[in-house]
Amino acid sequence: MPQFLNSQDADFEARFAGLLSMKREDSPEVDDIVAGIIADVRARGDAAVLALTAKFDRLELTADRLRFSESEIAAECAKVAGADREALELAAARIRAYHEKQLPADAMWTDDSGADLGWRWTPVSAAGLYVPGGLATYPSSVLMNAIPAKVAGVERLAITVPTPDGQVNPLVLLAAKIAGVDEIYRVGGAQAIAALAYGTESIQPVDKITGPGNAFVAAAKRRVFGKVGIDMIAGPSEILVIADADNNPDWLALDLMSQAEHDESAQSLLITTDEGFGRAVADAVDARLQTLERRAIAGASWRDFGAVITVRDLDEAAALSNRIAPEHLELCVADPDALGQKCTHAGAIFLGQFTPEAIGDYVGGPNHVLPTARSARFSSGLSVMDFIKRTTLARMTPAALAAIGPAAETLAISESLEAHGLSVRARLDALNE
Amino acid sequence: MPQFLNSQDADFEARFAGLLSMKREDSPEVDDIVAGIIADVRARGDAAVLALTAKFDRLELTADRLRFSESEIAAECAKVAGADREALELAAARIRAYHEKQLPADAMWTDDSGADLGWRWTPVSAAGLYVPGGLATYPSSVLMNAIPAKVAGVERLAITVPTPDGQVNPLVLLAAKIAGVDEIYRVGGAQAIAALAYGTESIQPVDKITGPGNAFVAAAKRRVFGKVGIDMIAGPSEILVIADADNNPDWLALDLMSQAEHDESAQSLLITTDEGFGRAVADAVDARLQTLERRAIAGASWRDFGAVITVRDLDEAAALSNRIAPEHLELCVADPDALGQKCTHAGAIFLGQFTPEAIGDYVGGPNHVLPTARSARFSSGLSVMDFIKRTTLARMTPAALAAIGPAAETLAISESLEAHGLSVRARLDALNE
Repeated sequence: MPQFLNSQDADFEARFAGLLSMKREDSPEVDDIVAGIIADVRARGDAAVLALTAKFDRLELTADRLRFSESEIAAECAKVAGADREALELAAARIRAYHEKQLPADAMWTDDSGADLGWRWTPVSAAGLYVPGGLATYPSSVLMNAIPAKVAGVERLAITVPTPDGQVNPLVLLAAKIAGVDEIYRVGGAQAIAALAYGTESIQPVDKITGPGNAFVAAAKRRVFGKVGIDMIAGPSEILVIADADNNPDWLALDLMSQAEHDESAQSLLITTDEGFGRAVADAVDARLQTLERRAIAGASWRDFGAVITVRDLDEAAALSNRIAPEHLELCVADPDALGQKCTHAGAIFLGQFTPEAIGDYVGGPNHVLPTARSARFSSGLSVMDFIKRTTLARMTPAALAAIGPAAETLAISESLEAHGLSVRARLDALNE
Repeated sequence: MPQFLNSQDADFEARFAGLLSMKREDSPEVDDIVAGIIADVRARGDAAVLALTAKFDRLELTADRLRFSESEIAAECAKVAGADREALELAAARIRAYHEKQLPADAMWTDDSGADLGWRWTPVSAAGLYVPGGLATYPSSVLMNAIPAKVAGVERLAITVPTPDGQVNPLVLLAAKIAGVDEIYRVGGAQAIAALAYGTESIQPVDKITGPGNAFVAAAKRRVFGKVGIDMIAGPSEILVIADADNNPDWLALDLMSQAEHDESAQSLLITTDEGFGRAVADAVDARLQTLERRAIAGASWRDFGAVITVRDLDEAAALSNRIAPEHLELCVADPDALGQKCTHAGAIFLGQFTPEAIGDYVGGPNHVLPTARSARFSSGLSVMDFIKRTTLARMTPAALAAIGPAAETLAISESLEAHGLSVRARLDALNE
C-alpha cells in the first residue's frame, strides 16, 4: 500500500516533507572503479576499450569491429517489423517538428550609443549519445536524444551502445538510422564515456555527451564534465497526477503504474481533492498489480514511494506540486490550463484526461528526457538548446567608445585592473587627438 | 618572452597542440576539506557558519549579524564616490537592456493531429550569488550575475560575500543594491555555498547558485550540484586577438595584458597574418610590462602561457581560433564581420579595433561570465537562460489520441513497458465504445 496523506491532518507537513526528502537511489561505491576505467582508456585507447568490453560485455572484438558497419546496420534494421518501423517514424517526425520550433534566433541591433550588440547561436560540432544495453534499452530514448542534436545542426553524432554477449536491439539501430546518427559503436559503460570524451584510435572525441545510463555511466559523465559538456544526471522517474473526482480511476492507476514499472525507485504520486476518489485509484492500482507483467517492480515502487494526498482545493494542490517539482505532471481536472498556470516547477505538464504521460514518452513531440529529483526547480528537459551555444557580439564605433568608454575606465580603476583601463584610455586619447 | 609560432614551421602542429593542452590550473587537494565543511554546515547550520567565518575570515559574528542590515548597506553605499556610482549605474542599465532581449517567448500551437503542444518559461524562485572577497572582489561581477537573475524574474536573490577581518567593499554592496539583490550575507568560502544550498537558521536555501570563487568555492559548487543548479566552473581568463598589420601594436598589447593581469594562469594569444607586426605587439607588451601595476602577474602569465602565432591568412586564423575556442575573441581586421562568421566557437567576440575586451567586462552589455578552458565548444556565457527553466506542455484531444495513440502503444510494447501501453489503450478503448 502507498502512503495516504490528508493536508488537514496534524502530521501532514512532517509526512509531506518526508516524501520530498526520500532517498530513492543507492550511491554504490563506483567512483574509484570509474576513475580507473577512464585512466585506462586515456592511456591505452582502443586496447583498453576492447579489454573492458571483453570483461563487462563478455564480447571479444577487434578495433575494426568497434563500429557497426553500414551493412550490419542495414541487416539489423531489416529485422524490424513494419508496425514498429512506422511507429518509430511517426514518433521521429513529431519529435523533429516540435524541436524545430525550439531553434532560437540570432540577434544584432544598434543601441543609442551607436554600439552594435547581439549574439549568434552555433551548433556543437560533435556529440555523443550513450544508449544503455541489456534490459532497459529504449529506442525512444535514441530518438529523444539524437533528434534535438540533429535539429541543432550537430555535424557528427555518435552513439555508443553495449551489446552484452553480442546481443543487439535492432530497434535501437533503426531509431539511430531514422534520427540521422552518423556513427554507432558497440561499447558501453564508463569505457564508452571515456572514449567519447578523450577519443581512441577508432573513436574520435566529441564535445558533448548526453543520454541515460547506470551508476557507472553517471559517475563517468560527472568525471568528464568540463572536458566535454554533459546533460543532466537523471534519477529514477517520477509522476504526479492531480485529479478531481471526475476521472476514470483505472486510467489514472495505469498512469501511476507507467512510471512505477520503470524502476523500484520510481515515485508515483496522486493529489486529489476527493479522498474517496483517491481510495478508488489506489484500489484500481491494486487490481492492475495483479496482472501487470512488471508487477514486481511497479508494486515495490508504489509500496515504498507511492502516495495518495488529499487536499482542500486545487490551489493547495498547485502549491504542493511546486514543492515536489515533478518530472511529469498530469492535470486531470476540469480546467487544466488554469491549474497549469499555477504549477511553475515541472519538467512536463500533460493537460487533461486524454493526455496520458506515456504519450509524452513516445509520440507527443516534447522531449522525454526531463529533470528528476526536484531539479525542475532550476533545470529543463533536453532540447535543441543542449546542442547549441551562444557567442555574444559587440562592436563599438569611435563615437560609442567615447560615450561609454570612460565609465569602463572608471570601473577598471576601481577594481585595480590598470591594463583594462589603459586599453580603453589609449583608444580614447587617440580619438581626442 | 611568450612563445612565437608560425603555421609554416615544421613543428607547428605539435607546438600549437601543446598550447591547447597546457595545464593552467593547480588542483589542490581541497575536496576533502570542502566535504567536511558542507557536512558541518548541514549538521550545525548557523553555528558552523559562524565558527568557519571566525576561522577563515578572522571575524567573530553572531547569527543576527550574518546578514547586512539595510542601514549598514546604506552606510556603505554612501561611501562610494559619485563617478564610481554613475559608472556602475551606466553599466547596470546597459547590462539590463542587453539581457532583457534574451527573454525567450512561450509558445503553444495546435498541430495537424489536433494536439496542443508548446512550452512555458518560468523563473527559478530563489538564486544565490557568490561574490569573492579580498583582492579579487569585483563589483562588475555582481552586476553581471545579479542583473540576468532579476531580468529573469528571480523573486529572491541572495548574495554571499566574505569580509575578511571585517573588510567590506562598498562598491560591491552598491552594485548589489543597483542590481536589485534582496539579501546580502557576510559569509564566504565553501561554507557560503553550503549555506545557500542547504540553508541554515538564518539563511534560507536557494535553487540555483552562480558566481566565481576560489578552488574551495568551485569544489563546493561541484558537490552541491544536483541539490541545486550551478553555473559553470570558471577557469583562468583567456583572450585571443586576431589582427592584421593595420593596427596599433600598443592597443593590442594592452588588450593582451588586460587578461594577463587577472591571473598568472591567464592566457593571452595573438594570431596575426604579419610576423613583423606580431613582433611589434610583443615589443609593446614588453614596454608596458615595465610600468604596469600588476606587471608581476601579467608578466608571468605572458611568459608562461602567452603566444604570438603567425598564419598565412585569416581562414587559417579562424580554423585555429575554433580549435582554441577562446573565452574572449578580438577581431582587429579590415572585415571583422566576415571573419566573425567563421569563428564558431567563442564565448564573446569583439569586432574591430575600437572594441577592446575591457568594454565587455564592464559596460558593453553582454555578460562577462564566459566559458573558459575550451568549453566554448559546448557552452555559453551566463545569461537570463541560466535563471529560467522550461516546462513542456501537451494536450491531446480524443481525436489526437486516436490518431497518434496507437503508435505510442506499439512502441511501449516493443520496449516491454506494458503499463505505458495500457494507459493509452484504456482510453482508446473507451473512445471506441
